[in-house]
Amino acid sequence: MIQASICTIGDEILIGQITDTNSSHISRALNDIGIRVTSMLSVGDDRNAIISGLSGELRKNSIVIVTGGLGPTKDDITKDALSALSGSTGYRESKEQLEIIIRILSSRGLEVLDINRQQALVPDRCEVIPNRLGTAPVMVFRFSSERFGHDCTLYSLPGVPFEAIGALDDVLADIRVHYETAEITHRTVMTYGLAESALAKRIGGWEDSLPSGMHLAYLPDPVKGVRLRLSIYGGTPEENSRLIDTELARLRDILGDIIYSEQDDTLQNTVGRLLKASGKTLSAAESCTGGLISSLITSVPGASGYYLGSVTSYAVSVKKNVLDVPESIISGYGVVSSECAAAMAEGVRRLTGSDYSVSTTGVAGPDGGTEENPVGTVWVGVSSEKGTRTCRFSFRNDRTRNMERFAASALDFLRKFIESDINQ
Amino acid sequence: MIQASICTIGDEILIGQITDTNSSHISRALNDIGIRVTSMLSVGDDRNAIISGLSGELRKNSIVIVTGGLGPTKDDITKDALSALSGSTGYRESKEQLEIIIRILSSRGLEVLDINRQQALVPDRCEVIPNRLGTAPVMVFRFSSERFGHDCTLYSLPGVPFEAIGALDDVLADIRVHYETAEITHRTVMTYGLAESALAKRIGGWEDSLPSGMHLAYLPDPVKGVRLRLSIYGGTPEENSRLIDTELARLRDILGDIIYSEQDDTLQNTVGRLLKASGKTLSAAESCTGGLISSLITSVPGASGYYLGSVTSYAVSVKKNVLDVPESIISGYGVVSSECAAAMAEGVRRLTGSDYSVSTTGVAGPDGGTEENPVGTVWVGVSSEKGTRTCRFSFRNDRTRNMERFAASALDFLRKFIESDINQ
Repeated sequence: MIQASICTIGDEILIGQITDTNSSHISRALNDIGIRVTSMLSVGDDRNAIISGLSGELRKNSIVIVTGGLGPTKDDITKDALSALSGSTGYRESKEQLEIIIRILSSRGLEVLDINRQQALVPDRCEVIPNRLGTAPVMVFRFSSERFGHDCTLYSLPGVPFEAIGALDDVLADIRVHYETAEITHRTVMTYGLAESALAKRIGGWEDSLPSGMHLAYLPDPVKGVRLRLSIYGGTPEENSRLIDTELARLRDILGDIIYSEQDDTLQNTVGRLLKASGKTLSAAESCTGGLISSLITSVPGASGYYLGSVTSYAVSVKKNVLDVPESIISGYGVVSSECAAAMAEGVRRLTGSDYSVSTTGVAGPDGGTEENPVGTVWVGVSSEKGTRTCRFSFRNDRTRNMERFAASALDFLRKFIESDINQ
Repeated sequence: MIQASICTIGDEILIGQITDTNSSHISRALNDIGIRVTSMLSVGDDRNAIISGLSGELRKNSIVIVTGGLGPTKDDITKDALSALSGSTGYRESKEQLEIIIRILSSRGLEVLDINRQQALVPDRCEVIPNRLGTAPVMVFRFSSERFGHDCTLYSLPGVPFEAIGALDDVLADIRVHYETAEITHRTVMTYGLAESALAKRIGGWEDSLPSGMHLAYLPDPVKGVRLRLSIYGGTPEENSRLIDTELARLRDILGDIIYSEQDDTLQNTVGRLLKASGKTLSAAESCTGGLISSLITSVPGASGYYLGSVTSYAVSVKKNVLDVPESIISGYGVVSSECAAAMAEGVRRLTGSDYSVSTTGVAGPDGGTEENPVGTVWVGVSSEKGTRTCRFSFRNDRTRNMERFAASALDFLRKFIESDINQ
């Protein structure tokens, strides 16, 4: 299997000023054509560090993709390092890139300076893939086996994310011509409601019996739940799909409705899909989640097709006056109670006229906890014309994390409520 | 200058499923205590790759900080690799971490499984810094000069971002004890309303005249605005503070109310401080921001002291029936209009009885744009007993980014409205 390394160059990454997003994009693209990324490396704008870092990666990998370090002010260092690394003896001008540079700058009404023209100069031992979206060309350096012990290729891409991503298709095309690309099959299953360790225990037997060559990874996320990813390297897509289908059928039997989606997904997307499919509408009444549930629901494009709106009833007065939660519930059971969650869910459904509603009332912290309802306690309510249900969840995290868990638990409780409604 | 490398472990990064954000956070923290990060490396869940990658980094650096690969499940093999790397002969139990594991799981009502207990086991050649926020402890491996040619230390942190960041203070304290760290004085100023390039142009003269040794960094964030950080390496804290005070006085004259805070801060914190100080209350009416403003406001601990709640009026019917936006405004001006934003702000203030209110109505995208109101357009309203004001903002981003910009612009507009009220 062809191995690749992705390298970024730039002090701005090493001092933490920007987060590298190019590498994850490029690695997804390489994985999709069956190339295995073995490492990612970031080095600063330092000639020796660039040469030694890239040499190390070329020794271990057939393909090294470099991004960054090619801006008009910094390109001396990276280009000089690449020139030395490739044994180039001078620079030549890429006419095609120079034309692009002139066109881009002219279209912005800018003068073409020497510093801009120099971006069209490349070490004489490289091939050029023109960068249509920016001024720095893609440089391709091919090394024979004498140099690093095996044939290998270095692609140098600009660092600006939309330029790097824009140039990637041409780079992938070049890779396909020069390397035999293998097949990797990935399948993702989203679960919610079991912590990573509990999930691992539940499916341990299944995991141990997976066919050799099939790999399982756990990817926990506070809002999405635990993502399970099955991968098979090599083989044919049809055969791999069949193998994975068989294992997923067994997994479904074990996990049941803990699985909420069989693609890379979110709870709010799943809820949205269920609502769209059934032509139903939704509203929310939030206390301790403070608007987060509504924010998650509306993060889905097209949410206006099923989402009517919400009331954040942070103050007791808003619970009473806007959501019509009876005073008797508040004085009798308190605001953090099953009764209050139910009344809030019913109240917002009446107010907005939605088919479904979801509500939360709890204690996110750091203050406000009691012995009965410590920080991290939430009551979630869901309601439809068929009835209202509530559930209590407990977490012990900081305020932000508690709010995330509350919102995710509410969305998952709602998801199961709608599913059971549809399946009736 | 002490050199460090930051390494992340996990196939999920190499296949591009998640973007590494820990490394930039850690590198900023190291830079702040005068440690230079020379490289960042990501390797997969592969024993040999971990050992060889980390060995290489330890040879070149005094400090190596590793994140990830410590989950309780089978795909994580970091601990085994670290045991081999350090020449450990077995595992010992960290009693302190085991207590934390039991406390965390019990508080969630979860059984403590063998797989959880195993997380408290560490290679016998490491010291433990307990991780109070999660189950995997921080492991500290100290290597004498025989091993990698110089004294060096490897810190292994959990990969979950809030756990990694939560453990970082203890790691930095350990680094300060064992290494000579430089004194750096930092001061942060928060700005909102000017893009990075426009801000750089506005303060270019001031920046050029800063005393030598004083460094300025721009750190843009879609929700916080552009953070400016002044740093002085070396010297005494008192003298540095005096120097920075002088420059900040000049910066204040240039930027005026573009500066919203002179500490590392957020707009929602600033709004909260203003409200707390004046004893006033706030409510929100959100359309296109879908609950994000409310979510940001309630992310501040103690927000219940001044925040009453909100209405997300995603559907037109909720604007009319809950917020009492007159039909004449909707049919006469449309929902994306100054008039509608004003009516929403006034409506939610009436409904909740708050002193102040803020509202948004616009087009986040990807659909719904018109010639008059393209995707990225938002009308923001603010209201108090003294009157109502509105403002139109335009952005051109994707849905998520537009919503963030809308919410931040609304909070900033509200911040200036409250400030001008107080200063009257």
